[in-house]
Amino acid sequence: MTLPSMNVKAYLDHNATTPIWETLYEEVPKWMKSWGNPSSIHQTGRAPKNILREARKQIAEYLQVSPLEIVFNSGASEGNNTVIKGLAEKILLEPMQHRTEKCEFMCSTVEHPSVLKTYQWLENKGLKVHWIPVNQDGELSLDFYEQHLSEKVLLVSVMGANNETGNVFPIAKLCQLAHQKGALFHCDGTQLMGKAEFDFTSMNVDYATFSGHKFYALKGIGFLYIKKNLPYTQLIHGGAQERYRRSGTENTFGIASMGYMLELMAKEKNKILTMQLLRDDFEKQVLQRISDVRITGAKAPRLANTSHMMIDGVDGETLLMNLDLEGFPVSTGAACSSGNPEPSPVLLSMGFTRDQAQSSLRVSLGWGTEKQQLDLFVETLEKIVKRLREIKHGQKYFN
Amino acid sequence: MTLPSMNVKAYLDHNATTPIWETLYEEVPKWMKSWGNPSSIHQTGRAPKNILREARKQIAEYLQVSPLEIVFNSGASEGNNTVIKGLAEKILLEPMQHRTEKCEFMCSTVEHPSVLKTYQWLENKGLKVHWIPVNQDGELSLDFYEQHLSEKVLLVSVMGANNETGNVFPIAKLCQLAHQKGALFHCDGTQLMGKAEFDFTSMNVDYATFSGHKFYALKGIGFLYIKKNLPYTQLIHGGAQERYRRSGTENTFGIASMGYMLELMAKEKNKILTMQLLRDDFEKQVLQRISDVRITGAKAPRLANTSHMMIDGVDGETLLMNLDLEGFPVSTGAACSSGNPEPSPVLLSMGFTRDQAQSSLRVSLGWGTEKQQLDLFVETLEKIVKRLREIKHGQKYFN
Repeated sequence: MTLPSMNVKAYLDHNATTPIWETLYEEVPKWMKSWGNPSSIHQTGRAPKNILREARKQIAEYLQVSPLEIVFNSGASEGNNTVIKGLAEKILLEPMQHRTEKCEFMCSTVEHPSVLKTYQWLENKGLKVHWIPVNQDGELSLDFYEQHLSEKVLLVSVMGANNETGNVFPIAKLCQLAHQKGALFHCDGTQLMGKAEFDFTSMNVDYATFSGHKFYALKGIGFLYIKKNLPYTQLIHGGAQERYRRSGTENTFGIASMGYMLELMAKEKNKILTMQLLRDDFEKQVLQRISDVRITGAKAPRLANTSHMMIDGVDGETLLMNLDLEGFPVSTGAACSSGNPEPSPVLLSMGFTRDQAQSSLRVSLGWGTEKQQLDLFVETLEKIVKRLREIKHGQKYFN
Repeated sequence: MTLPSMNVKAYLDHNATTPIWETLYEEVPKWMKSWGNPSSIHQTGRAPKNILREARKQIAEYLQVSPLEIVFNSGASEGNNTVIKGLAEKILLEPMQHRTEKCEFMCSTVEHPSVLKTYQWLENKGLKVHWIPVNQDGELSLDFYEQHLSEKVLLVSVMGANNETGNVFPIAKLCQLAHQKGALFHCDGTQLMGKAEFDFTSMNVDYATFSGHKFYALKGIGFLYIKKNLPYTQLIHGGAQERYRRSGTENTFGIASMGYMLELMAKEKNKILTMQLLRDDFEKQVLQRISDVRITGAKAPRLANTSHMMIDGVDGETLLMNLDLEGFPVSTGAACSSGNPEPSPVLLSMGFTRDQAQSSLRVSLGWGTEKQQLDLFVETLEKIVKRLREIKHGQKYFN
């Protein structure tokens, strides 16, 4: 793994972004030679057009869907906005008295900001959004879901897995219930890819979004799955790219990197189990060596790579900085909201206190994470937690 | 210049996309090592954050604006949609009776599809759009503009230069007139960059869009200029990136490639004059050696690199394929609409007949184009045109 600096002993923030996969350092310069515009009908357009076709096939094969159901875009934030705003548009642009009955939305309270804020935007425009709560154990409230899921609901959005806690939600079941009421189902699958085994087709979702940089591919690239013949409105109007579903000259190398990684991933499914064993061992060590630690959402299903914990008497931000100085980049919450001193809205929405939320640490493993790295990390974590607790209490805090 | 295939003698389609600049093949793999998430507050986020800061500064310096006025996005298609839909949104979402007086739009009839189709979308939603005609000489009708530019107009969109004919429009003047009526001005500057000398600040536009892949940088990346304190609505909601103006993890290497190219471009302004001399010489040769050729828009100001012509008795698509076989990738119109057998809407809107439009050839030079390449191209063009005319007329067509 190419490390960004000499001072990194173990990168443990794979939910924020993954390193670019080692062999891509050779592949990308090769793809760069196919710099033509894929829409050009002359020979310069042929190689990039083939790159797109190949990547679309690799991705479709990974998900076991049709290549025509894949739309390339700039990432999951764009994808999530496209699905939600696209479906809401028709309702919003109708005069109130002409609006169809089917004009309500549902989403979980722990969605990624690109889903959450888009729904808040819909709410501001006067649309009804039902917010499905998630409890402290990381379980989505099925009771609430079934109670509020009516024939009025047009679209349900629930993420495949949460980026902070790593909790995995029962998408297949939620989707089946949604379909029974005639609602469409959208899943932000960003965190699932490469971190959980999942059978995409049996989830049966109608729309799903993914980001390349969360599965060792490049940044600024993603794709949207749209089930055949479903309603869809493009967010970016213009040229004929992606069969008029997403205009703009294609990011060929980014697209190629996604296809490449998903083909690789299909052969490397053991990496998920390996991460899970490492993560479980890591958590066991932490619980043995550090007192008053609570693993978040551990009772519910979780991604194989994520360990979110709350450490009593420790400020997460301070802990993060100390761990960083020691060579361990980790996170307290979502990278896209970092720099923000407010505690994680995801944790608050799950019913944790501000103090609890502010004592949190997210450790997210990657395909390249090794046992000795984690052992060293636990040792360092133990040492720092001890020091921070001593400072805070002005006395020895007994582990 | 790294050519995409052994069979390319001269790439002459730089308005569709530019080759990746040669030295970027060394730079990109270096940037790839800064694969961290720029929003991460640990050390892994520092290098990519610096890359963003540096590129934003390079771009701002090139345009002589403030770095805070630059918003990175996936390209000009996204940028154009963001500006237009963002400003229209407030009007569209207000009930008809509450709509402000300032709710009309203006744009030229020869805009890029990402502007044109977005305005058509607004029209479909019931908004008034004034379409400013452009005549056969490539001149935008100032009469029409002044007649229809009223206090009711919220936004005017006119491109800096047309991608097909290369005609440059008098943005500074159009913008000044718009501001006099209290209208905002948006300029799609995609084709200007690296192909025309322009003083951006004296144009005084309120919004401008650019795409990296049109100035030798990577694909899938672009930026939007937004003048300080002007109204703006984000298209993609979510994380705090770009000061909440464009969510989604940043395409660091793409962004770096734009900053790199604009810094280089500032030093290489002579390249524009060189292209112009080559283009003028090329056109002179064509007119001398091939009969019944009309250079489109030649009386009006044009980009330095673009030569658009109509060749009597020749089908553009057939000509393109023949030239391609001989090693000269050129274009008949916009790449983003290629594969479409319909004649160019831009040319039709300028008042050309379908036959004229279908006899068109666009030759667009780049920084790497050399005189001997163009000489060889003219020779090949003469030969092919002669052959095609012979076939068409079943007899010798005398040049």
